[in-house]
Amino acid sequence: MRHCMNQSAMQKYKIVISYNGTSFNGWQVQANGLSIQTIIQRALAMLLRQPVDLTGSGRTDAGVHALGQTAHFTAAEKIDQERLLYSLNALLPPEIRILSLEPVDDSFHARYSAKGKIYHYRLHLHKVPDPFTRLYTTYFPFPSSLSLLQEAATAFIGTKDFTSFANEPHSGSAAKDAVRTLKRLDVAEEKGGIRLEFEADGFLYKMVRNITGTLLDIATKKLPADSVAAILEARDRRKAGRCAPAQGLCLIQVLY
Amino acid sequence: MRHCMNQSAMQKYKIVISYNGTSFNGWQVQANGLSIQTIIQRALAMLLRQPVDLTGSGRTDAGVHALGQTAHFTAAEKIDQERLLYSLNALLPPEIRILSLEPVDDSFHARYSAKGKIYHYRLHLHKVPDPFTRLYTTYFPFPSSLSLLQEAATAFIGTKDFTSFANEPHSGSAAKDAVRTLKRLDVAEEKGGIRLEFEADGFLYKMVRNITGTLLDIATKKLPADSVAAILEARDRRKAGRCAPAQGLCLIQVLY
Repeated sequence: MRHCMNQSAMQKYKIVISYNGTSFNGWQVQANGLSIQTIIQRALAMLLRQPVDLTGSGRTDAGVHALGQTAHFTAAEKIDQERLLYSLNALLPPEIRILSLEPVDDSFHARYSAKGKIYHYRLHLHKVPDPFTRLYTTYFPFPSSLSLLQEAATAFIGTKDFTSFANEPHSGSAAKDAVRTLKRLDVAEEKGGIRLEFEADGFLYKMVRNITGTLLDIATKKLPADSVAAILEARDRRKAGRCAPAQGLCLIQVLY
Repeated sequence: MRHCMNQSAMQKYKIVISYNGTSFNGWQVQANGLSIQTIIQRALAMLLRQPVDLTGSGRTDAGVHALGQTAHFTAAEKIDQERLLYSLNALLPPEIRILSLEPVDDSFHARYSAKGKIYHYRLHLHKVPDPFTRLYTTYFPFPSSLSLLQEAATAFIGTKDFTSFANEPHSGSAAKDAVRTLKRLDVAEEKGGIRLEFEADGFLYKMVRNITGTLLDIATKKLPADSVAAILEARDRRKAGRCAPAQGLCLIQVLY
């Protein structure tokens, strides 16, 4: 009975987080360096005066940004949400902002309830790199080869085994099933460059950066323009191109 | 004769510079801190193997940015311009980029030849400040009062004595004549906020920031909406509003 009462006194909350990943050691708690998860978890624990276990939708690497990372935690039911949101943002460094905080059903899980994710990868194409966007874009001053990149991008779309584009995770949680459905890989023009827009039901570790790196290798003719199908088929990370730098990547939205 | 020959062997160059002003102590050489002028001057002197005197179109304060600051210097005629531009950008910190370098007539002067300048001041209006633009905008979460600001802005346009909106310069070069022609003060909407666009034949020291601060004081009702004419008339800095923070300001273009 006591257990049941404790359970009923608890409430699950979902938060949406925006962060400039430049100065942090990625999302996930690491042995070395300060992670975004750790910083938010500590701030929550301080404000709620209880240990807090914050579960994110998934990790982002050091230097990767987010406009819409999500996470959940459980707390005492009687919290003033608006006040907690305000206090959290006052306590957190300005590079991390909590955009919203809302109660969710107990069955909600930031990672397992996610139906998909949207990532953007930004390429800066000017001859002279821009001092304002350099930490949010990857410099790629080869605008003439963009048609190659656009053509090759379409070869990734669909339900495929993306083993060739997945790195082994740091921890033991290797994805046995590497089949994912990439719904969109759009090449959108933006001021100063282009934006690769990825939407999938899920992404393997470093998948966006490995696909982007491969596209850049195709654009610079290090890989043949028609090589994507064979690379996918090989199911071998060594067949694909390089891993594109972290700073061009941004987690835009987690879909539920 | 020797003097004349030396003169003819020299060539004047104009450079256009973009900088993220966050980490620097402003444009102009200062006793304390590292100025952008000093950094570029040193890089030029190293590459040209001669002392270089770099003259900017005007100072920008610490934390103020530029997309199109201009400057001139004189060097030996036989320089490879494209190579110098490349080497300069390789040597300079990534927060400072030289966008172009071109020979100009000996009569050109970065400051005295300027016919006008364009500055933008960016205000960030979201409820939660954005971690990506916070160093390039001023946070002003009062969107409902923008109509007051827009109305008051028009009162600044025209040929007027702007003494009330000028700070005393640090050095002795006080502008005796404070009459300037403000051609435009447009309020443009942009993603996340608004942008005040200033164009004038010239600006007094801190004039854009003092006008912006006064507009913000009007928007927050610290000053009456119709007070601009009387403040201009008073020719007294103390009658105007506060000086808006540096980081929202960017020198967009110097007009020749």
